[in-house]
This record gives sequence, structure tokens and C-alpha cells, in this order.
Amino acid sequence: MLDTDYATTLVVLDLVGIFVFAVTGALVAVRKNLDLFAATVLAGVTGLGGGFIRDVLIGATPPAALADWRYLLVPVTAGVLTFFLHPAIGRVERFVTLFDACGLALFCVTGALKAVDYGLGPLPAALLGMVTGIGGGVIRDVLAGRVPVIFEGVLYATPALAGAAVAVLLDRSDLPFIVVVVAGATTCLGWRLLGLVRGWRAPLPRGPASV
Amino acid sequence: MLDTDYATTLVVLDLVGIFVFAVTGALVAVRKNLDLFAATVLAGVTGLGGGFIRDVLIGATPPAALADWRYLLVPVTAGVLTFFLHPAIGRVERFVTLFDACGLALFCVTGALKAVDYGLGPLPAALLGMVTGIGGGVIRDVLAGRVPVIFEGVLYATPALAGAAVAVLLDRSDLPFIVVVVAGATTCLGWRLLGLVRGWRAPLPRGPASV
Amino acid sequence: MLDTDYATTLVVLDLVGIFVFAVTGALVAVRKNLDLFAATVLAGVTGLGGGFIRDVLIGATPPAALADWRYLLVPVTAGVLTFFLHPAIGRVERFVTLFDACGLALFCVTGALKAVDYGLGPLPAALLGMVTGIGGGVIRDVLAGRVPVIFEGVLYATPALAGAAVAVLLDRSDLPFIVVVVAGATTCLGWRLLGLVRGWRAPLPRGPASV
Repeated sequence: MLDTDYATTLVVLDLVGIFVFAVTGALVAVRKNLDLFAATVLAGVTGLGGGFIRDVLIGATPPAALADWRYLLVPVTAGVLTFFLHPAIGRVERFVTLFDACGLALFCVTGALKAVDYGLGPLPAALLGMVTGIGGGVIRDVLAGRVPVIFEGVLYATPALAGAAVAVLLDRSDLPFIVVVVAGATTCLGWRLLGLVRGWRAPLPRGPASV
Repeated sequence: MLDTDYATTLVVLDLVGIFVFAVTGALVAVRKNLDLFAATVLAGVTGLGGGFIRDVLIGATPPAALADWRYLLVPVTAGVLTFFLHPAIGRVERFVTLFDACGLALFCVTGALKAVDYGLGPLPAALLGMVTGIGGGVIRDVLAGRVPVIFEGVLYATPALAGAAVAVLLDRSDLPFIVVVVAGATTCLGWRLLGLVRGWRAPLPRGPASV
Repeated sequence: MLDTDYATTLVVLDLVGIFVFAVTGALVAVRKNLDLFAATVLAGVTGLGGGFIRDVLIGATPPAALADWRYLLVPVTAGVLTFFLHPAIGRVERFVTLFDACGLALFCVTGALKAVDYGLGPLPAALLGMVTGIGGGVIRDVLAGRVPVIFEGVLYATPALAGAAVAVLLDRSDLPFIVVVVAGATTCLGWRLLGLVRGWRAPLPRGPASV
């Protein structure tokens, strides 16, 4: 029964993460003055894209999201709601960023552990965890015609890699699954939020660009 | 014998669709003043990209197009012809748009039915049908450095989704295969052409963008 | 013992190719004033992206690079080194271009032969060889927000296709493996270097673009 509880909790958290990621995708569409369809598609690829890349790379096809209608309904709902309610959502953007950090924390951990399940070593598994967390946002930005925001000095991918690495390493111990997930997610979330609050940025290149 | 006729018809229609999609890819390259190689590559990814995404997602690898040289020869031919004859093709652009709508109608239906064949449920199958129809054009636009045209208010993806959904739903009945294909394709084609003629557009966001 | 020597040689050459490709990815990041993380990611996708696309398309998942930590360490090292030493690397750009040509020559051949191993016919195998060689650079350019350089008149993909085709054709003969590899790689490298030295360019479209 506990197991079922854990599983249900994970699915709910997963859907919440997808929902928030999808909202950020739809917001990009609205701000580019794209149409309702674009908002829904960008919502979908932002919410599901990272997991799709991971599943295709580890050979877990078709991706889980294509076998469970809830995983498709959630981003579509997020896209349509955001399209029509975007001024209100813009006012609570602080919360969107917070939830987005929670989504990132969860995705990097579950993504890394799924890669371990498929037999990958610790280093590639941690990398795939990071890819699960950041992949949707990268596809969103490429489709919207802008350089991925994660490349522009924001501390976003490093926390995801750290959280994934913690989860992969602890997973090799005898710790209970829930501890592994919480430790990994807390690492990612804490680092990301600290970075947001303190305005930490990744280092930029020094010296003249040798064009 | 009828079965063979159907199969042959489907392959011919498929190749015609790939050819026309490939022409649109090469036209984008010519208009961006890209070289002959770019025209051929954009022709290829536009003609085959949607099917590749679908096949990778449902695990049908290597994609059918890589196992049949005709599927490679057709887009290359389309790319080279368009590169050298682009002024003439530009003059019949109306027909290109019409054939492109036919290609879309066919791809969304065959894409969705292939996903059903691989065991996907109706909702993901319809979505993959739409992806088969629009995916090549999206890759074309990303590679050519522009926001995908399907995001800019043109009614293109919704007809593809509708045609795919009709095909998936009718496929669960006892109707003959050819009826399923024709009904789905007609739904997509009719809606797309009506949208073109009447200038229908998807709704744009209202209110100030909450930048 | 010879076989082991060949295999070791191939792995070393492969890693050298990945390293140089990764350097070009990190240089693009530095020149766009992107951060350290972006330099590492662009290094990684440029070095490994072509092989990933090939492996996903032929169903060889997870890609070899995810099962061998050296394939991950090399591009990360290249990215970090380039980020901090970019003025020095900029001064030896001639050598970067030369090594990049070597990487291209190697990747197109090994990519094509791997596709043959997975049962693909000669034409698709040659195409996948070309994709292995140029894919990483295309992803790099798309992520960095620019039209892929291979589309802008530089003679880059044609040599890769030619080298892959030579390797695929010779592979059907009784020639020793090493001869096949050397002949294919030499074809690609020679053509690429000749094109560089003589400033050969692929043909551009003629006549008014029919906008």
C-alpha cells in the first residue's frame, strides 16, 4: 500500500511538473504573439519534450507519455488556460518560476533513475536526468526562434545535473527510494532557488572573442 | 489483388506527398539564397522528417524511408528540380499549396494508422498523425532559421489533427480500410482548403502581453 | 592482435574527432558570449550529436557514447578548455579547421559502416554516414540561433557523402577493413581540403527568388 502511495505521489508530482513546464511554454507563445495552436504545441513540447528525448535515447519507445492520456491532457489544458488567462498568469510569474524549479527538481531525479533502470552507468544517467529537466525548455526556445534561455547565464542546468547526480549516487546505496528522490530533488531545488535569490550566474567568457 | 492495388495506391500517394513537401522545403532554401546542397537537404527533411519523428517515437526504427530507395530518391529529385526551376515553380505556387494540402491530408491519416498498428491508443495515435503531417515543415523552418509557419495563425495543424482523429475513430469500426483513409483525408483536406479560401486563422492572444 | 590494434586505433581517432568537433561547438558559444555551461553543452552536442541521430534512426539505443564514459569526458574537457583558452585556440583556427576536416572524414566513414552493420542498404547507409558527420554541427548552429553553416555555400556535406559512399561501396568487396576506412576517409578529407584551399562553393540559386 505504501508502494502504491509512492507511485501515486510520483505520478501526481510528475503531472504537476508537466503542467508548470507547459505553462512556461504557452507564455513564450503568447509573448511572441503566436496563435492558440502554437501555445498548445509549445505547452506540449515544453512539458513532455525532455522525457521524450530521454526515452528515445535509452530506447524506451513509445515514451510513457504516449501510453497515458493524462500526460497528453495536462499540457493541452495548461496551454489553453494560459492562452486565455495569460495576463493573470503574468501577474503570478514569481509562482510560475517557483513551480518551474520544482518541476526541474523532480524531472532531473525521475529522469536519471529511469535511465539507471534501463541499465545506463552513473555518468550518462545523471546527464540524461539533466536532459529530462532542461530538454523541454530547449525545444520550446528553438521552436520559438530564440537562443535557449539556459545558455544565457541563468543557473538552471547545473542544479539539474547536481540533483540527478545525487539521486544516481544514493540509488546505489541501500537507502529507501523516497529518500533518494527527496535528496536529489532537494539538491536541485535548493541550488536553483539560491541561485535565483542571490542572482548567481554561470561564468561568461573573458577576453576578446576571437572572431 | 485488390489489396495489392490499395498498397500500390498508398505508396504512390505517399511518394507524391513526399515530393510536394520536398518542393516546399527546397523553395524555402532558394528564397533564403542557400546553396544546392541546402535545397536538397531541406527537401529531404521536409518530405521525410514527419515520418522520421513518428517512427522514432513509436520505436519503428530504422524508419521505412531508410529501407526503400524510392523514398530517398523522390525528395532529392524534388530538391534538385526546384533548385534549378524555381522561377517556374514560383509561378504555380497555388498548385504547390494545393498539393501540399493533399500531402498533409494523406500523411496525417497514414501516420495515425501506423501508430495504431504499433499499439498506441486513439489520442496519441491522432497526435502522431498530426506530427507526421506537420513535423517535416517544422524541421524545415527551424533549420532555415525562422519560426515555424504553422505557429503564425495559418490553419494547418488543426485540420491534420482532425483528419487523423477521424481516421483513428473510424478504424475502430468495421468499415473497409479505404473508407477510413478517404474519410480522414477528406476531413483534413476539406478543412484546410476551406481555411485557405476563406482566410480562416487560429485565434491570436488578446490583451497586453505580460512581458 | 591486429584486430585489437585496429579497434584501439578507431576508438582513438573517434575520440580525437569528437574532441575537435566539440572545440568548434565551444568556440561558437564563446563568440556568442554564452556562459560556461552553454560552451560545455554545445561542445557535447557538436561532438556527439551526429552519432546520436544515427543511432536513434537505426535503433542502436542507447547510443554507444552513453555506455562509455570516455565519450562523455572528451567533449566536456574540450568545452571547458576552449572556454578558458579561447583566445589561444582562435589563433590556431587553421588547425581547428584541419582537424575538423579529419573528424568529418572519420565520422562519415564509421557512421556509414555502422549503418551497414545494422542492415541498411548502401544508399541510406551513405546518407547516415553524412548525417553522422554533419549532424553535430547542425544541432550546434540551431541551438546557437543561426542558420547551419553547412547550408551557406561551404563545401562540407558533399565530401562527407562522397567519403561515406566510397566506404559503403568498397565494404561490399573483399578489401580489408582498414583499406575501406582509409579510402573513404581520404576521399572525404581530400575533397574537403581541396575545397577549402581553392575556395570551392556549392552552386547558389540563379534568377530572382520567386517570393
